[in-house]
Amino acid sequence: MELFTVADIPEIEPGDDLAAIIADRADLRSDDVVCVASTVVSKAEGRIADLADFPAGPRAREIADRLAELTGEEKDPRFAQAVLEESVDLLMEAPFLLTETRFGHIGVNAGIDRSNVPDGDLLLLPERPSESAARIADGLPTDRVVVTDTCGRPFRYGQRGVAIGWAGLPASRDWRGQLDRDGREMGVTVQNVIDELAAAANLVAGEGAGGTPAVVARGFEFGDLPGSENHFREVEGDYVRQALRGWSYTAEGEA
Amino acid sequence: MELFTVADIPEIEPGDDLAAIIADRADLRSDDVVCVASTVVSKAEGRIADLADFPAGPRAREIADRLAELTGEEKDPRFAQAVLEESVDLLMEAPFLLTETRFGHIGVNAGIDRSNVPDGDLLLLPERPSESAARIADGLPTDRVVVTDTCGRPFRYGQRGVAIGWAGLPASRDWRGQLDRDGREMGVTVQNVIDELAAAANLVAGEGAGGTPAVVARGFEFGDLPGSENHFREVEGDYVRQALRGWSYTAEGEA
Repeated sequence: MELFTVADIPEIEPGDDLAAIIADRADLRSDDVVCVASTVVSKAEGRIADLADFPAGPRAREIADRLAELTGEEKDPRFAQAVLEESVDLLMEAPFLLTETRFGHIGVNAGIDRSNVPDGDLLLLPERPSESAARIADGLPTDRVVVTDTCGRPFRYGQRGVAIGWAGLPASRDWRGQLDRDGREMGVTVQNVIDELAAAANLVAGEGAGGTPAVVARGFEFGDLPGSENHFREVEGDYVRQALRGWSYTAEGEA
Repeated sequence: MELFTVADIPEIEPGDDLAAIIADRADLRSDDVVCVASTVVSKAEGRIADLADFPAGPRAREIADRLAELTGEEKDPRFAQAVLEESVDLLMEAPFLLTETRFGHIGVNAGIDRSNVPDGDLLLLPERPSESAARIADGLPTDRVVVTDTCGRPFRYGQRGVAIGWAGLPASRDWRGQLDRDGREMGVTVQNVIDELAAAANLVAGEGAGGTPAVVARGFEFGDLPGSENHFREVEGDYVRQALRGWSYTAEGEA
């Protein structure tokens, strides 16, 4: 398998045809997986907003006040309002906002980006990233597209690339029932390949001014195993999420 | 960047020289990153054990009883004992054991594998995977080695490759203070590249009988950014881990 960046992608503006921009700059094959950073998908889709678009309601003001109290840092209640409006569930209010977006992704601040935006204050995640992936694929010689983001996670330090939308390949490979070399059922169950593709793409993409928002994974074979479209966990079976329900941050909570 | 498997690795036995086995089968370059599955590292290091080696103490019996009660499935208290002996902290007791290993990795059942073992019941994780990585690197033309595992995670479905040990490259790239195209500080902070390398390797490695336990990542450039050796989070700052402390599973906890 090979990973390479698509060179010379210009600054993306609302309405730009991302598929055409990528196809013009890469000699794509029909089984390539094209990994596109959510930042450029959002820009092309006009998901740029201004803090002034989000007048803070009482809940947002409450959250901002509590954050300021706990962290000693002034928080703009309009930013909390934007996060709330982009979310369907609030998992943590402090010391940062951890929420679930409409499409099921769990991340800090609903994935709203305050860097990387030339003409506005906020860059919101695409509304339905898998539909974005399918639309981009329509304009490419391959139907395999992954929309990527970077985010942190519990237990492990740092951020890594993850998939937030996908088209043209299943999210996961299902190994259940497969046998190991000795005929025993394997420990691994379901392998989330789109997250692994996003992580791989992030290794070569870079970030910021020197970053490239499109990476091609060539030679990835999904293989003959059954695929699954599950990507974000349901609350049932997500015990960490259940534990967060009963929890709230206190300065003394710091171990 | 290119990812390829090392072909024809035989069944690994305790005492085998993994570095020699890999170097004989791949024309390695000095900047390759060699990703080696923890299963073969454990086998070479003789980390194969038998349930009979772990006579269950009272704590293990209590855990097994509670698991049986909650899940309706008989659990071997000796397995719970093995997990406890391989762990320094117990994050969840039910409906499965989530623990921290001596070297800081958090996973289900302390990462003990009951498949993939020809001559014993249990395959324990390497005791100090980063030392294993350094030892393997000593016998290779490259000093860059990542010891990989696969595990699940909260919020996102399925398992993905992760790094549990590393040598010859920093765990993370530190982007803090770097500016985006518009001169603003970037949203991304620290990029965990060894986890991304492990995820990428897992895409081509396969599993079980058809799996290949060594993958070469060629052409990965760490770049000029500062590196960090942090890989596993500390309890301080890991709010999910703090939340799990006060939580315990009940059948009604299922949402």
